[in-house]
Amino acid sequence: MYTYIQNVHEHIGEEITIRGWLYNRTDKGKLRFLLVRDGTGTIQAVVFKGNVDPEVFEAVDQTTQESSLTVTGTVKEDSRAPGGYEMDVSHCEIGQIAGEYPITPKDHGTAFLMENRHLWLRSSRQHAILRIRHEIIRAVRDFYDNNGFTLVDTPILTPAACEGTTTLFEIDYFGEKAYLSQSGQLYNEAACMSVGKTYCFGPTFRAEKSKTRRHLMEFSKVEPEVAWANLDDIMKLAEDFVSYVVQRVLEERKEELERIERDTTPLEKIEPPFPRISYSEAFVLLETEGTDTPRGSDFGAADETILSCSFDKPVIVHRYPRDIKAFYMQPDPEDSGSALCMDMLAPEGYGEIIGGSQRIHDVDLLLERIREHKLPVDAFKWYLDLRKYGTVPHSGFGMGIERVVSWICSLDHVRETIPFPRMLYRMYP
Amino acid sequence: MYTYIQNVHEHIGEEITIRGWLYNRTDKGKLRFLLVRDGTGTIQAVVFKGNVDPEVFEAVDQTTQESSLTVTGTVKEDSRAPGGYEMDVSHCEIGQIAGEYPITPKDHGTAFLMENRHLWLRSSRQHAILRIRHEIIRAVRDFYDNNGFTLVDTPILTPAACEGTTTLFEIDYFGEKAYLSQSGQLYNEAACMSVGKTYCFGPTFRAEKSKTRRHLMEFSKVEPEVAWANLDDIMKLAEDFVSYVVQRVLEERKEELERIERDTTPLEKIEPPFPRISYSEAFVLLETEGTDTPRGSDFGAADETILSCSFDKPVIVHRYPRDIKAFYMQPDPEDSGSALCMDMLAPEGYGEIIGGSQRIHDVDLLLERIREHKLPVDAFKWYLDLRKYGTVPHSGFGMGIERVVSWICSLDHVRETIPFPRMLYRMYP
Repeated sequence: MYTYIQNVHEHIGEEITIRGWLYNRTDKGKLRFLLVRDGTGTIQAVVFKGNVDPEVFEAVDQTTQESSLTVTGTVKEDSRAPGGYEMDVSHCEIGQIAGEYPITPKDHGTAFLMENRHLWLRSSRQHAILRIRHEIIRAVRDFYDNNGFTLVDTPILTPAACEGTTTLFEIDYFGEKAYLSQSGQLYNEAACMSVGKTYCFGPTFRAEKSKTRRHLMEFSKVEPEVAWANLDDIMKLAEDFVSYVVQRVLEERKEELERIERDTTPLEKIEPPFPRISYSEAFVLLETEGTDTPRGSDFGAADETILSCSFDKPVIVHRYPRDIKAFYMQPDPEDSGSALCMDMLAPEGYGEIIGGSQRIHDVDLLLERIREHKLPVDAFKWYLDLRKYGTVPHSGFGMGIERVVSWICSLDHVRETIPFPRMLYRMYP
Repeated sequence: MYTYIQNVHEHIGEEITIRGWLYNRTDKGKLRFLLVRDGTGTIQAVVFKGNVDPEVFEAVDQTTQESSLTVTGTVKEDSRAPGGYEMDVSHCEIGQIAGEYPITPKDHGTAFLMENRHLWLRSSRQHAILRIRHEIIRAVRDFYDNNGFTLVDTPILTPAACEGTTTLFEIDYFGEKAYLSQSGQLYNEAACMSVGKTYCFGPTFRAEKSKTRRHLMEFSKVEPEVAWANLDDIMKLAEDFVSYVVQRVLEERKEELERIERDTTPLEKIEPPFPRISYSEAFVLLETEGTDTPRGSDFGAADETILSCSFDKPVIVHRYPRDIKAFYMQPDPEDSGSALCMDMLAPEGYGEIIGGSQRIHDVDLLLERIREHKLPVDAFKWYLDLRKYGTVPHSGFGMGIERVVSWICSLDHVRETIPFPRMLYRMYP
């Protein structure tokens, strides 16, 4: 019987056996302090020379960082020990003495760490980020599952391009051209007419020759879509959703947030309602800050940062000019030059995490827009069908998981938010 | 305020408003019986001519299948009504009178239904399968999340091929060759050395020019991997896991299973332990049934069916000949010609749903196998690293979600198990 380190508190005074890897060793006379990690936690195992067989003590002296170990000993509480518990070792078996470990406590360059991502993941900080990412994903799914949404998986291999093919990875599908999906939205629109409220959640792809701290070639996106919902409905949904996710992480991943030294004060403020400003109002703000961006165009990175830093909660910017937005967005009935759309920008300078809109539900208007955008009408036959058979207003949005992980963990670069990042010149390991 | 049909039981005697689509209409004198669906349920809304404005009654008379409606009325219990509740309609607004709906209650060919998959999803049976699929996916995630596993997403875009490139979709990654992942296993092995117990769950791809009732080009796979686990440990994990998933669906999706007329008796038997037989024992059984397959080769489809139908629970077949299995499998210490691997075959003729193994943890043996299989050693540098720095025995498996949906729903063909199937000559919609 083996015990996971996360459960040692249930075994105070008992002899248990754990299996793991040596994270660090300190020697003091006849004592060897082994910091052992097993993926669920870390514990200090104290080997006193007099308590173990001489050959065991000798073997312990040979252990290097990341050597694999099976350690037997008695658990005791010790407030001075990292984690609050310690083991008095009675026996220790070495699985393997690890070769000289490439990642040491000294500073390494990012290129080196990325090249060794498969090992870097074992470090305390990366381990914490993995666990926070997992909790974010769980919270996302729980939110939709508990609010009556049905998960309807949308395909990765798609025949048509939603918004042009320039940033799509192309693939040969038995002689036909296919593309890796950038969004499940169009399929979500079909699904929500069946299940009412739907979401999809999975990898999406963007073949963009850009190197920024906010872009990956492969990233995760969650996209809810709600039949009968209008722009107001999904702005409300988005703020409830983001607040839920942040609060869940604060509750469930306190230890990990501490480990990566995240100041949680700004996160504690994340609850509905969020500030909402129109695109025009946003420009008034940007112009007082001296932006060079002309009205009518999309915000630049600097503009996003200004907006993001102007509020201590995520800010929703709505009703962008129709001309800079996707073909499927419903025009604002009060201003046909604007689209019923919204972006949500995370605070602390993190910028856009959500983009969404009300979708055009009138078949003639949709057809007109598809033609205006010079998209292949044939490929959209099924999408147009959704407007012929009981069309209803409907709305949805997409949230990028890596940007949310980046914000919640307060990371400088999105590459640490995903286990195996795919970047412009990085597909290994 | 609008009510979802799944919540009407909370409003007996009250006037509510629902929004949805007309599934069916029956006229009887001054009565119109509207069967309305909204994705969360179905309810009969009864329009009595004397209770609504004349123009409303006229409009109702124009409604066609899938027309969108907003219906106001009083909820009453009625054991004769489908679902047990009815609405006495006081008002009805028509969103859109649907064009002539292509999918009628009469029989359609599969090709036609697949071509109209975006609409077919609205039918009662497909809706039920979507909901069961969702519950299976939730149960899968809950099982691992509640048992201490950390989700570590593995990449879709991969540089190296795990088992040869013949069945891989190739992609141009900025001038480099990349492939769409068939398995996250190799990455899982790196992750489990960080988090102890890991799983990945997402789309996987197989470019196989085969048309069978059990294959899709894009499908979902969940893959757990456990550090320090041996073959026995993961056989136990697999039977606990599959039992949990089946029992969850029986508890949570009773109505949907009834709707698709699934006889649940065989599913109720699915609990641990499952029968376990070795490859050699399986052959004894197959030979008494007169198989033509020579010993030493993989089972044919007919063999799988025989094995699958020989037990009323899933059967685990373990220790296949090493030569027909993947390079990374640990040899059986008691018979070096066999691998420490296992497949699980679902009953009722459904066949393989799980494949797994203990992995080679010795770096020299692994290197030997990579060379034997003529795989590019360079591409496996990081994978070999895992055996250099504190290597430990570890094991895992993969389960195909669509095959499990197929079995639990008792479907003839895997194409109905996924919202938008990708098959040999099918990438639309």
